[in-house]
Amino acid sequence: MKQLFLDALACRNQQRPPIWLMRQAGRYMPEYRAIRKKHSFIEMCEQPELAAEITLQPIRAFGMDAAILFSDILVIPKALGVGLHFEEGKGPIIERPLHRGADVEALPKPNISEKLHYVAKAIRYVLPELEVPLIGFCGGPFTVASYMIEGGSSRDFKKTKQWMFRDPDTFHQLLTRITDCTIDYLNLQIDAGVQALQIFETWANVLGHPYFRKFSLEYMRRIVHGLKDANIPVIIFCKGSSAFAKDIVEIAPKGISLDWNVDLTKVRSLIPTNVALQGNLDPDVLYASSEVIQREVESLLRGMNSDPGYIFNLGHGMKPDIPVDAVKVLVETVKNFKK
Amino acid sequence: MKQLFLDALACRNQQRPPIWLMRQAGRYMPEYRAIRKKHSFIEMCEQPELAAEITLQPIRAFGMDAAILFSDILVIPKALGVGLHFEEGKGPIIERPLHRGADVEALPKPNISEKLHYVAKAIRYVLPELEVPLIGFCGGPFTVASYMIEGGSSRDFKKTKQWMFRDPDTFHQLLTRITDCTIDYLNLQIDAGVQALQIFETWANVLGHPYFRKFSLEYMRRIVHGLKDANIPVIIFCKGSSAFAKDIVEIAPKGISLDWNVDLTKVRSLIPTNVALQGNLDPDVLYASSEVIQREVESLLRGMNSDPGYIFNLGHGMKPDIPVDAVKVLVETVKNFKK
Repeated sequence: MKQLFLDALACRNQQRPPIWLMRQAGRYMPEYRAIRKKHSFIEMCEQPELAAEITLQPIRAFGMDAAILFSDILVIPKALGVGLHFEEGKGPIIERPLHRGADVEALPKPNISEKLHYVAKAIRYVLPELEVPLIGFCGGPFTVASYMIEGGSSRDFKKTKQWMFRDPDTFHQLLTRITDCTIDYLNLQIDAGVQALQIFETWANVLGHPYFRKFSLEYMRRIVHGLKDANIPVIIFCKGSSAFAKDIVEIAPKGISLDWNVDLTKVRSLIPTNVALQGNLDPDVLYASSEVIQREVESLLRGMNSDPGYIFNLGHGMKPDIPVDAVKVLVETVKNFKK
Repeated sequence: MKQLFLDALACRNQQRPPIWLMRQAGRYMPEYRAIRKKHSFIEMCEQPELAAEITLQPIRAFGMDAAILFSDILVIPKALGVGLHFEEGKGPIIERPLHRGADVEALPKPNISEKLHYVAKAIRYVLPELEVPLIGFCGGPFTVASYMIEGGSSRDFKKTKQWMFRDPDTFHQLLTRITDCTIDYLNLQIDAGVQALQIFETWANVLGHPYFRKFSLEYMRRIVHGLKDANIPVIIFCKGSSAFAKDIVEIAPKGISLDWNVDLTKVRSLIPTNVALQGNLDPDVLYASSEVIQREVESLLRGMNSDPGYIFNLGHGMKPDIPVDAVKVLVETVKNFKK
C-alpha cells in the first residue's frame, strides 16, 4: 500500500504532497460516461460491481494517491424512506421532502447495515484492486437535512433555514436522526475496510457563525466521537471552511479540507501542526490552458510543499465538463513538483 | 444631521451602535410594493422622485440610522449599452451579454454624468428630507462583469470564470472599463452630496484567494483611489469577506461589511481598530419569532456593543418575504440595547 496520503494525513509526510480530487470519479471521464449511459445514477451507487469499477477509474487514469468510494451523500435520506432519484441536469430529487416536525417523527428507524450493505460490498470489491488508500465518506447532517427539506438542490435554502429558526427543536431531532444513521453508516464503512473518512458538510456556508456551531459542527462532533475506530483519520470538508477552520479544529479531525477562498499558508499559521490541511485550488482553474494550470498549481505547491501535513486537492468538487487533459496536467504538475 | 452612523464609521462612536440594513428599501415593505405595482423596477431607479421616495421609506418606517440610495448596481452595464430589464422572480436580465474580447472592445465610452444624471437628481431630492446620512453605492467590478457575461444571475458563474482563466487580458480590459465608469459614477454621487459609499462586490466568494486579489481587490483599490474626495468614508461588502477581511484592509476602506460566516469579535482582533466593522446577522434570523430575533441580535450586540467602530447590519441583503414586524423588532432591539 502506498502511504503518501495517510502519511500526509498524519502530518508526517517527507515526500511530495499527495493528490486526490473531490468527485474524481465522475462525468468528466469518458469511462464514467460509458457506464452512465447504461445505468441510472442510483444503480451506479447501489450495484457494488459498478460502484467499485467507477471508484477505480480515476486511479487507473491518473494515478491518484487516494481513492474515494463512488457513492452519494443522499443514500442516508434514501435509507430513511423519503425517496430519491436523479434527474439529468437537475441533480438529486427527494420525492417526499419533509415539511414539519411530525414528518421527522414519522421517519422509520432503518437498519443501516442491512439497507446500505451494498456499500460494504463495493468497498470489499475495491480494496484488493487498490495500491492506494480508500476514503469512505458521508454527508454532514446539516447538508443532508437541507436536501430532505428543500427536496433537492437549492439556491437560498429558505425552507431549511425557516424551519431551523422557527422550530429548532424538531430541526435538532432531524439532525439527530441523520447523525445516528450516519454513525452506523461510517462504522459499516470502517468494518468493510476504508482507511480514512471524509465528511462533506458542503452547505455549511449558508449558516451564520453561531448557527454553524449549533446546527452543523455539533453533529459532526457526534459523528467523529461515534466512530468505532477512534484512530481512523477523519477529514472535514465544508464550504465556509475558510471562516470555520478554527472552530472545526475543536472536534479534533485529522484533516480539514479548505474551500478556495483562503490563502492556505495563512490558514496553516492558525491551525495546529498536527491537523492536516487539504485543498484548495479554485476548481475553475481547470478550464484554463495547460500553462496556466501548471503555473497556478505550482504557486499553491510552493506555499505548502514543505508542509508534512498537506494534501493537494481542489477547493470543491470537479465539474462535469472539465477536460480530461487538464486533470492530467494537474496531477503531473503535483507529482513532478521539485521543492 | 444625526451623526451616529458616521461616528461609528470613523471608529469613534461612544453611544449604541447605529443600524441600517442592506436592501432596507425593498419588496418586504408594503409601501415599496405599492410603488412597484405601478412602475417597472427600472423606472423606480431612473425616476428621481420615485427613487428618492423609496430611499426614504425605511427611514420613516423604522428610523434607520443611515439611508442608502435606492438604485441598482446594474445601472453601469445599462450605461454601457448591454440592455437591462428585470423579470419578476428571475431578477436582472442583461439583454446582450458579452461573449468575447471583441465585445469588450465594442463597448461604448458613455458619459456617465449625463447617462446617470438621474441618480444625482435623486440624491438631491432625498437629502433635504433626511436627518441621517445618505450612503451612495456601486457594484464591485467583478460582480458587475459577472452579470454582463452570464446575462443575469448565475449559480456557478461558469462563463465568467472560464473567460477569466482562459483570456485574462480581455477580462482585465472589461474590469478596467467597468472600473472607469464606476469611478465617474461614485464621483457624481459625491458631487450630489452622499456622505458615505459602499461597494457591493457580492460575488467575490466565487473567486479563489489569489484570483480575488487580482480580479476583484485590485479594481476596488482603483475605485477607492479614484474618488475625488479622499475623505469620504468607503465601506467594502462582499460575500467571502469572512475570509478576505485582512486583504481588504490593504486598500484602506473606512469600513468592512462582513458576511455571516464569522464571529465578529474574532474578526475585530485581526483588523486595525481604525477600520469600522459592519454586519453580520444571518439574514434568515428574521424568519424567526420576535423572541429569537431579540435573543440573537442581543447576542451579537453583547460581543460588539462597546466597539466604537461597529455598525449593526445583516450579513447580506434583506429577503423580499421578511415580515415587517421582524424588522421592527430588530431595529428596536438594537436601539434599546443597554451595554
